[in-house]
Amino acid sequence: MAHDVFPPPRRLLLGPGPSNVHPRVLAAMAQPLVGHLDPAFIALMEETKRLLRQLFQTTNELTIPISGTGSAGLEACIVNLVEPDDEVVIGVNGVFGTRLVDVATRAGAIVLKAEAPWGEAVSGEALAAAIARARRPKLVVLVHAETSTGVWQPLEDASRLAHQAGALFVVDCVTSLAGCPVEIDRVGIDAAYSGTQKCLSCPPGLSPVTFGPRAVAALRARTRTVQSWYLDLTMIEKYWGEERVYHHTAPISMNYALYEGLRLVMEEGLEARFRRHRLNHEALVAGLEALGLTMAVAPGRRLWMLNSVRVPQDVDDLAVRRALLVEDQIEIGGGLGPLKGKIWRIGLMGESSTAANVTTLLGALERLLPRHGMSVPSGAGVAAARRVYAAQELPTQRGTTAAASEG
Amino acid sequence: MAHDVFPPPRRLLLGPGPSNVHPRVLAAMAQPLVGHLDPAFIALMEETKRLLRQLFQTTNELTIPISGTGSAGLEACIVNLVEPDDEVVIGVNGVFGTRLVDVATRAGAIVLKAEAPWGEAVSGEALAAAIARARRPKLVVLVHAETSTGVWQPLEDASRLAHQAGALFVVDCVTSLAGCPVEIDRVGIDAAYSGTQKCLSCPPGLSPVTFGPRAVAALRARTRTVQSWYLDLTMIEKYWGEERVYHHTAPISMNYALYEGLRLVMEEGLEARFRRHRLNHEALVAGLEALGLTMAVAPGRRLWMLNSVRVPQDVDDLAVRRALLVEDQIEIGGGLGPLKGKIWRIGLMGESSTAANVTTLLGALERLLPRHGMSVPSGAGVAAARRVYAAQELPTQRGTTAAASEG
Repeated sequence: MAHDVFPPPRRLLLGPGPSNVHPRVLAAMAQPLVGHLDPAFIALMEETKRLLRQLFQTTNELTIPISGTGSAGLEACIVNLVEPDDEVVIGVNGVFGTRLVDVATRAGAIVLKAEAPWGEAVSGEALAAAIARARRPKLVVLVHAETSTGVWQPLEDASRLAHQAGALFVVDCVTSLAGCPVEIDRVGIDAAYSGTQKCLSCPPGLSPVTFGPRAVAALRARTRTVQSWYLDLTMIEKYWGEERVYHHTAPISMNYALYEGLRLVMEEGLEARFRRHRLNHEALVAGLEALGLTMAVAPGRRLWMLNSVRVPQDVDDLAVRRALLVEDQIEIGGGLGPLKGKIWRIGLMGESSTAANVTTLLGALERLLPRHGMSVPSGAGVAAARRVYAAQELPTQRGTTAAASEG
Repeated sequence: MAHDVFPPPRRLLLGPGPSNVHPRVLAAMAQPLVGHLDPAFIALMEETKRLLRQLFQTTNELTIPISGTGSAGLEACIVNLVEPDDEVVIGVNGVFGTRLVDVATRAGAIVLKAEAPWGEAVSGEALAAAIARARRPKLVVLVHAETSTGVWQPLEDASRLAHQAGALFVVDCVTSLAGCPVEIDRVGIDAAYSGTQKCLSCPPGLSPVTFGPRAVAALRARTRTVQSWYLDLTMIEKYWGEERVYHHTAPISMNYALYEGLRLVMEEGLEARFRRHRLNHEALVAGLEALGLTMAVAPGRRLWMLNSVRVPQDVDDLAVRRALLVEDQIEIGGGLGPLKGKIWRIGLMGESSTAANVTTLLGALERLLPRHGMSVPSGAGVAAARRVYAAQELPTQRGTTAAASEG
């Protein structure tokens, strides 16, 4: 058994995350450790905060990684900003909105849901109606990129509605950050959280968060202690700030990885990176549609980094995903909750978002789908994707970690 | 700046953790990622649970790593077992007992402290008195290895007292696990948590926990939802159990590291590993005392993996530690709280516990102390340590990660 585990299989990670990790980030993970108060680590912390601010497009001082996965960042934002009986308006149109409701309820919040069907964005009307049901909402929370459905959520009107109601505007950027614009300051987002294993293309294990002046003021104005010690930002900020007061031992190696991942993002440039994610998304959609598949989300609401497509009628969801994994070493995601068995979720995140990966996946589907009961026009998917690339300037080809395989 | 961070300096980590990491564990961290539901990762999860049970010396089914550092494991044990107004008896004789009080209070517990001066173990009398003050204690919690003071806490009488009172016995094994015996089943410990960055010699970022049948029954009998979603074991156990229900995305690379770290522990053997920690501790103590230094903890209560020694009168704590770091690349820890400036904490944990590291540190102190105002008998420390080694069978020399330097 022991010898089966390492080396792990080389997968092409085209699911909902983790995504493929750049060799430079893997090399950073293998660097020897220093202490969590070592001057060398403190220098890395300072650089990480600076790079995270660039990525979040903010000047927020309190911009740091929480020592857990994206869900820990979610919980950190909620438990630090919510006190019992605070009203919290939450947009719910998938797994992560549902999770926010659960976490806020555990924190003692009175939750007001602004709902939309899974696969659609939360409308301004639904949000305004939920806000109107509140007496004095403390937070309005939306999921920017709903990883469970592939829906992109517009934020600007919501930010205005939240602030008109006197609430803080909080956004889940787990899957959007580093794949499409997340403009904290311009949009007026007061607090946001993300994850390392999506478009940042680092291993899972840290959750970058940013708190703006209004959110920090709310933190300072709390009348009760934050219910979680581990996620208490009033303490964590003293370790990441100038005081360097020991709180918990920072995950040193994961912070090495995040730092190196952020450097790669900045070397590519935000605009180029977003363009790359968009182009590969467009090529994939063209390819999938040319094969006769149907996207699950309407145009204009589709995420570039998480493409959900309907499982064709009479095709066995699990059998196709298993064949992709076993024969082609490709991971894609299945549906969750009401979408279980109904959609595939194809991630093109960070290092995984490459033209080579798009055509590799389309080629594999062209080969596999006929075997699983759906006839497809041979070569049409790859050809359609190539036409998209040909029609545009090709972005710099990045992402050398793809375990490309024609099977 | 960017070029200053990697490669990080090669430190000899002889502080309170992180400890030095074996090259095989670093190599595991650099393996490419698989998904958190990949069959290859599920196989690794199963192996990890099996190895953790061996290490904890338990048959507890619910033995898994929590996705955060040791403090997240601490909070997980408390919030899963405590409901508001439950009485919790906590042994307090250092930072980590104090932290337990804070976490339990945030969970709504009524805390009854069994106190001892920092540097001493909690006595059976103090514990019995605190238990007697409770009506019906839900938990009795002790810190096995108080990292802030270097005190080893005996557990067997406490386990009996806890169970006589009908309470669950919960133990903090963050620093003891893999360095000295932690016998969950024999001692009757109902729940325990540890960390990866101490005697397991992995990077920080995971916290192994184990829950026995009585603790699992208490979890099942809860009347209120666990206040933390991220740490809710009733959900996490469904991902680590046969159901494989997605909860949060597991930190893949950190789990690679833990698995490889556990394999190294088992290759060495628990008995041999404990003997090694004990012998290097004895050699270090002999060396420090030969230099004229005084241990801060009485014999019989000293930890093998964390040696606290008084800062000599008229010697500048910080100046000596800074010189060790800058000139010798050696990290040792300072005191915390009431012991700040009064003790040094010298970790000999996992890969850091080697004869070479003991003599390297003693040599460095022999050179540095006279420069900082304390005359020491030249060569006496190293010689005393060598006599300890000569008097015993030398354990297998492990720990190739030491950045040994005679300065």
